[in-house]
Amino acid sequence: MAQQKPLHELGLAEAARLIASGALTSEALVSACLARIAEREGVVKAWSFIDPEAALAQARACDKAPSKGPLHGVPIGVKDVLDTHDMPTEMGSSIYAGHRPAEDAACVALARMAGAVILGKTVTCEFAGMAPGATTNPFDATRTPGGSSSGSGAAVADFMTPLAFGTQTGGSVLRPAAFCGVIGYKPTFGTFNRAGLKFAAESIDTIGLIARNIEDLALMCSVLTGAAFVAPVAPEQSLRIGLCRTYLWDKADASARTALQRAADAASKAGALVTTYEMPPHFSTLTATREIFNNVERARSLPFEWTHHRAQISAALSRSIEAGFATSVEDYVQAKRFAETCRIEADAIFNDYDVLLTPAANGEAPVGLHYAGDPSFQGLWTLLHTPTIAVPAGKGESGMPVGVQLIARRYEDKKLLDAAQWLIARAGVAAEMA
Amino acid sequence: MAQQKPLHELGLAEAARLIASGALTSEALVSACLARIAEREGVVKAWSFIDPEAALAQARACDKAPSKGPLHGVPIGVKDVLDTHDMPTEMGSSIYAGHRPAEDAACVALARMAGAVILGKTVTCEFAGMAPGATTNPFDATRTPGGSSSGSGAAVADFMTPLAFGTQTGGSVLRPAAFCGVIGYKPTFGTFNRAGLKFAAESIDTIGLIARNIEDLALMCSVLTGAAFVAPVAPEQSLRIGLCRTYLWDKADASARTALQRAADAASKAGALVTTYEMPPHFSTLTATREIFNNVERARSLPFEWTHHRAQISAALSRSIEAGFATSVEDYVQAKRFAETCRIEADAIFNDYDVLLTPAANGEAPVGLHYAGDPSFQGLWTLLHTPTIAVPAGKGESGMPVGVQLIARRYEDKKLLDAAQWLIARAGVAAEMA
Repeated sequence: MAQQKPLHELGLAEAARLIASGALTSEALVSACLARIAEREGVVKAWSFIDPEAALAQARACDKAPSKGPLHGVPIGVKDVLDTHDMPTEMGSSIYAGHRPAEDAACVALARMAGAVILGKTVTCEFAGMAPGATTNPFDATRTPGGSSSGSGAAVADFMTPLAFGTQTGGSVLRPAAFCGVIGYKPTFGTFNRAGLKFAAESIDTIGLIARNIEDLALMCSVLTGAAFVAPVAPEQSLRIGLCRTYLWDKADASARTALQRAADAASKAGALVTTYEMPPHFSTLTATREIFNNVERARSLPFEWTHHRAQISAALSRSIEAGFATSVEDYVQAKRFAETCRIEADAIFNDYDVLLTPAANGEAPVGLHYAGDPSFQGLWTLLHTPTIAVPAGKGESGMPVGVQLIARRYEDKKLLDAAQWLIARAGVAAEMA
Repeated sequence: MAQQKPLHELGLAEAARLIASGALTSEALVSACLARIAEREGVVKAWSFIDPEAALAQARACDKAPSKGPLHGVPIGVKDVLDTHDMPTEMGSSIYAGHRPAEDAACVALARMAGAVILGKTVTCEFAGMAPGATTNPFDATRTPGGSSSGSGAAVADFMTPLAFGTQTGGSVLRPAAFCGVIGYKPTFGTFNRAGLKFAAESIDTIGLIARNIEDLALMCSVLTGAAFVAPVAPEQSLRIGLCRTYLWDKADASARTALQRAADAASKAGALVTTYEMPPHFSTLTATREIFNNVERARSLPFEWTHHRAQISAALSRSIEAGFATSVEDYVQAKRFAETCRIEADAIFNDYDVLLTPAANGEAPVGLHYAGDPSFQGLWTLLHTPTIAVPAGKGESGMPVGVQLIARRYEDKKLLDAAQWLIARAGVAAEMA
């Protein structure tokens, strides 16, 4: 019999199965996660709110009750821009210190309906933007964990929780996942209901997941969307992979380039048909277009805070809001039309490829905690509304995790998860991930 | 000199100009609106919250301060699904009795930044759905004002406020406007930021406006989007109007049919090129497609209420939520893809027409307060994300208001407002409206 994993290292689906079978209690599992947090939180600082007694009370209630659903008794973390009725929701801003919403965000309530224990709230950059909290990278506390879902990335990577919710408007799910060596998944825009999410830029804000394996993502998708839960299956037929360096290639450092090539080679060796895909030249304005969305919609979503609490808004966000208010409606509408056209064009890419393979980020997590990294490599896909996933792909030149990113056609999330499973299980990418 | 209108009958832009010129105080204007409310609210029941002293305090503060912007000192009403930091937000549901959000919805905060006085909250059907509040039609208290923006429609029609915010997921802005004989405008999807709106079905929920003239809509658009304010101009060149009976024509009663023909004849006589436009046959499933969006997204946005407060959810909404949970993801995704295809096809309609002209509703407001009317004639355009406006077009067989609806291409809201202005000012439709 294989050596038993420490409980706090269990995956979501694995833990749910053990609890359902009676081999594990929710209390034991949650206790193990809390013990891990107690041991490591002083360094990692992943949580904006954690109340061990409250988490244990939820766990004990699960242990006493009949199963509520497929997440019965398993703990998850919730990014602190998502409302919770029983925990503060502070959004990384002193404006909301101690703020208590009346209800749970839809995704939190759906997870609870399925039996999940809400372990606590994870640190977010201010309003899911650019100004980071205190979280450090679990692999090197002098480095950023990425952002804005900083706490979710660090907590999952550090085995404090098997899964955490994140949100992505630029690169806020995939970048922290890549920097922390775990899996980050942003589904097709609109897949997970956003009721109870504090908007950053509402026409691109997407709720996503950070976890340590693909099955856990599929399980949570099933809970949030009502889809039947089917464990991801590495496809038997040869995957057609488009190696996509993007117009951002100059930003990819040696670590990112090596990781991408290594993943492409491994995929090729494992039987995939890997060919180079060149984006159409006009896609090179997608980064600037996303900035227009980001600025205009942030400005128009935060007028209350801008009016009443301007002194508590960071300089970075203030610049974005000012840029948003200064952008003409004509430029914004043109950006919307352009994005829509590109989304339809992007659908057609996937006539020739099952998935695209591209860097997950510029490289390893940068040193310093004041800057959560460049969202460019993630943000263009956020604008395109495509489902996208970051998979760990070894270490970079400083020994830090480096990820690669897979992208599929809008609404083909199942295909994306299966391809990611293939890349991990068959091609051996992410082999060293726990 | 023309007879002075009673103050409570002033339009938004007109009142703002008088205040800016020093000819009128905000206090006098708000007092007049409050007096009208005091006189009529016992019958009309348009407001879920009104605090005369608080409204007057806002008005007096405006009178003492330098102008904050183009709405300085003018009162507006806010549908009670939009958050207000200083008034309850109850969403037409006993679940939220006395609920006090921490902040203002974005549209409310933007209006306040421009100097608006928030007069109070207007009655909404439960969660902007099908279960009506107590509001009556100002033209006949035995009839529905329409819904779900019931209070906004009735308050504007009854001269209690020059303008009120509404929201439309099916027909919730245009139908109450049509039933109450005023103008209802749903902009292109995504035009007004939705931060602080309680979602019904997030991929079609659209914040809109109810007012008594087109200029007031243009002014509020400018405040909410940052567009330059340009008063609507009835176009000089001949309008190309597509007379669109839609696949719903069997639902249009004699009043609706007569009003549409009368408006078409008046437009034709005034110089418009009016020709019949037939929708493609597959558009006839748009109503059923919108129902899928409505059910699935309501179910997925209200899991907290469904878990904790199910007994307080109406039978109508419970049926919608149950239908939503029972709908397969595959059917929902297919509905999304179909809607997106139709949106792009709908853009092309407007190569041949400046606007379409269609019934605003099935006919006059039905008798009874338990049913806010059929959303079909409005809902298909909501799904299509097109901008759309209901304009009063005379009286029906029972002497109640009947409207017609104009539709333009997505993002061509300026053209829509100009065409509506033309229909009113040049073609004489809505001539009898105050």
